[in-house]
Amino acid sequence: MRVRGTARRTIEPAADGHCVEIIDQTRLPHELVLRRLASLAEAAEAIRSMRVRGAPLIGVTAAFGLCLALREDPSDAGLDAACAELLATRPTAVNLGWALGELRRALAGAAPAERAARALARARALCEEDVATCRAIGEHGFELLRRAAERKGGGRLEILTHCNAGWLAAVDWGTALAPVYLAHQRDLPVHVWVAETRPRNQGASLTAWELGQEEIPHTVIADSAGGHLMQTGRVDLCLTGSDRTTARGDVCNKIGTYPKALAARDNGVPFYVALPSSSIDWSLRQGRGGIPIEERDGRELRFVRGRGADGRVVEVEILPEGSAVANHAFDVTPARLVTALVTERGSCEASAAGLARLFPERVDGGAA
Amino acid sequence: MRVRGTARRTIEPAADGHCVEIIDQTRLPHELVLRRLASLAEAAEAIRSMRVRGAPLIGVTAAFGLCLALREDPSDAGLDAACAELLATRPTAVNLGWALGELRRALAGAAPAERAARALARARALCEEDVATCRAIGEHGFELLRRAAERKGGGRLEILTHCNAGWLAAVDWGTALAPVYLAHQRDLPVHVWVAETRPRNQGASLTAWELGQEEIPHTVIADSAGGHLMQTGRVDLCLTGSDRTTARGDVCNKIGTYPKALAARDNGVPFYVALPSSSIDWSLRQGRGGIPIEERDGRELRFVRGRGADGRVVEVEILPEGSAVANHAFDVTPARLVTALVTERGSCEASAAGLARLFPERVDGGAA
Repeated sequence: MRVRGTARRTIEPAADGHCVEIIDQTRLPHELVLRRLASLAEAAEAIRSMRVRGAPLIGVTAAFGLCLALREDPSDAGLDAACAELLATRPTAVNLGWALGELRRALAGAAPAERAARALARARALCEEDVATCRAIGEHGFELLRRAAERKGGGRLEILTHCNAGWLAAVDWGTALAPVYLAHQRDLPVHVWVAETRPRNQGASLTAWELGQEEIPHTVIADSAGGHLMQTGRVDLCLTGSDRTTARGDVCNKIGTYPKALAARDNGVPFYVALPSSSIDWSLRQGRGGIPIEERDGRELRFVRGRGADGRVVEVEILPEGSAVANHAFDVTPARLVTALVTERGSCEASAAGLARLFPERVDGGAA
Repeated sequence: MRVRGTARRTIEPAADGHCVEIIDQTRLPHELVLRRLASLAEAAEAIRSMRVRGAPLIGVTAAFGLCLALREDPSDAGLDAACAELLATRPTAVNLGWALGELRRALAGAAPAERAARALARARALCEEDVATCRAIGEHGFELLRRAAERKGGGRLEILTHCNAGWLAAVDWGTALAPVYLAHQRDLPVHVWVAETRPRNQGASLTAWELGQEEIPHTVIADSAGGHLMQTGRVDLCLTGSDRTTARGDVCNKIGTYPKALAARDNGVPFYVALPSSSIDWSLRQGRGGIPIEERDGRELRFVRGRGADGRVVEVEILPEGSAVANHAFDVTPARLVTALVTERGSCEASAAGLARLFPERVDGGAA
């Protein structure tokens, strides 16, 4: 997608062919800062501190991090240690483990001396596959938007999203926003309600920014406002991403997804979740209890980063000293609240049967 | 309640006997600034810019604002103009109109020359009545907490609240927090989950601050986190205030109350709303559509106020330039999601029948 009119990806090869260059997402929307990742440690830090985030992009970044590690130490021990370090950066998104598994599979039987090159080839392929996957999600999601617009019978389609599941969360296109970009390109009028997504404000600082760069009409709201907008008929559908989806269709996504799904159900608003199949945890039947919910530093709630009157980006403290803070980063939306899942293979009911129909090879003996 | 160990009210008479002194709530939690209101214009500005806020305190401040107006112009025209100016400051809370109605009733038959003194006497009485009302709400709410603690059978009671319905929202005690203060004083162990309440952060900057001043255990969370805490069994009950309650028990309160009530219902967590009867709009049968929902300046979402590294309190901008913002300040929680209303006369079902039982004089011909 475009940054100041020029097409860009969230992660691109650096000139040396080994390092990668990312957009430092902690600096948006006020500063566009590119950052070069030249080592395992730098890749792990970028994921941990959320310079890159979003389930698909975390996976791809981890893959390149493993490539960088193998250039320094291609031994079995080095491989294991690098995978362990990368896996520990973020506990909830399943793509991290999935991408590392893909690289490990590609390395099977490779002598240490060949590993770095072989891993790099696979990481680059993962990158291209992610773009194709998101694009396919976009097509299937666009179909849902087109039909919703038809049902509405005129006027722009009002879409509510939470957090950032746009191209900044993937290599390009994004998951939940891919259908929105296609709709815009195909002259289906859309407007996006962007929930700011406390405490890190990914909606306000990333989704609003990337929609603005593509000139897509959008309005930022407080996270709490989605229910009121749905009650008053101002939302045609909700569309979010997922960091981990269970084999039964429960969706673990950024904290605040679940209350929006409840409001959608209470008001008869369809609630769609877009995800690459790499974020499905086929080993999990149930979301609650089964998925590790990341608890992040309370500083993320205590301090807010923004641009001061003098133009400098600074942090300000919004809480009284001495108040405790809890910062759970994800919640689980039960499948019963999800109207449909949108994957690269099509849309389906959020259920074991629905997913089995699209991914029969993942289910023992066919449909569950 | 206490500020740095000393008992204080949110609004107190100034030394001259006519002006009033408020705590400027836009400066909390980092600065304790008292502000003298000496004219109608200053009182109206204080309400409009939320230096004072909370349904009960808005009502009392408007009453003193009318007194200040009558000292300058006690004519019929002056009275009407002052009431109109005060009524226009905030559209949603019904206490504003209620308090002005109380003063008008007290002025019935009074010659212009007597009006200022008579209004001041009634405004002072309203202040005392508000304290007594909140204290009574505290007693009835405490009974609910005590029974909930009994059912829990040990450990501290986990209470989730939204926005600020503490003593800063009233003259003293508060509405939703009055039972919490009584529980703490009576050694019933409580812990409060405080939703930060974007965009103005009344939870983070006011509720956390006042609970801290009284040394009540509390933890600040993002607004979106309530659902996850309820899903994972970490909330025993929710307790909020109300800015306007319909005769059927629908509750209009700070934006974000409705999604929390939905999450409470989905997880079997009781959802209580504490309110003085002055915030009941007996003319309204239904909440949605009937209550004017205030839309405030989008700047409140765009800018966040906090303390910088150098200790100075500043505003920072968190949104990209060019992104639109919507800032609806309230939502309506339908009565079906409210476990009970807690008023100064006791608790009741959130329904026309429940309210009629407690306030038979407000219902034509007895119970509805």
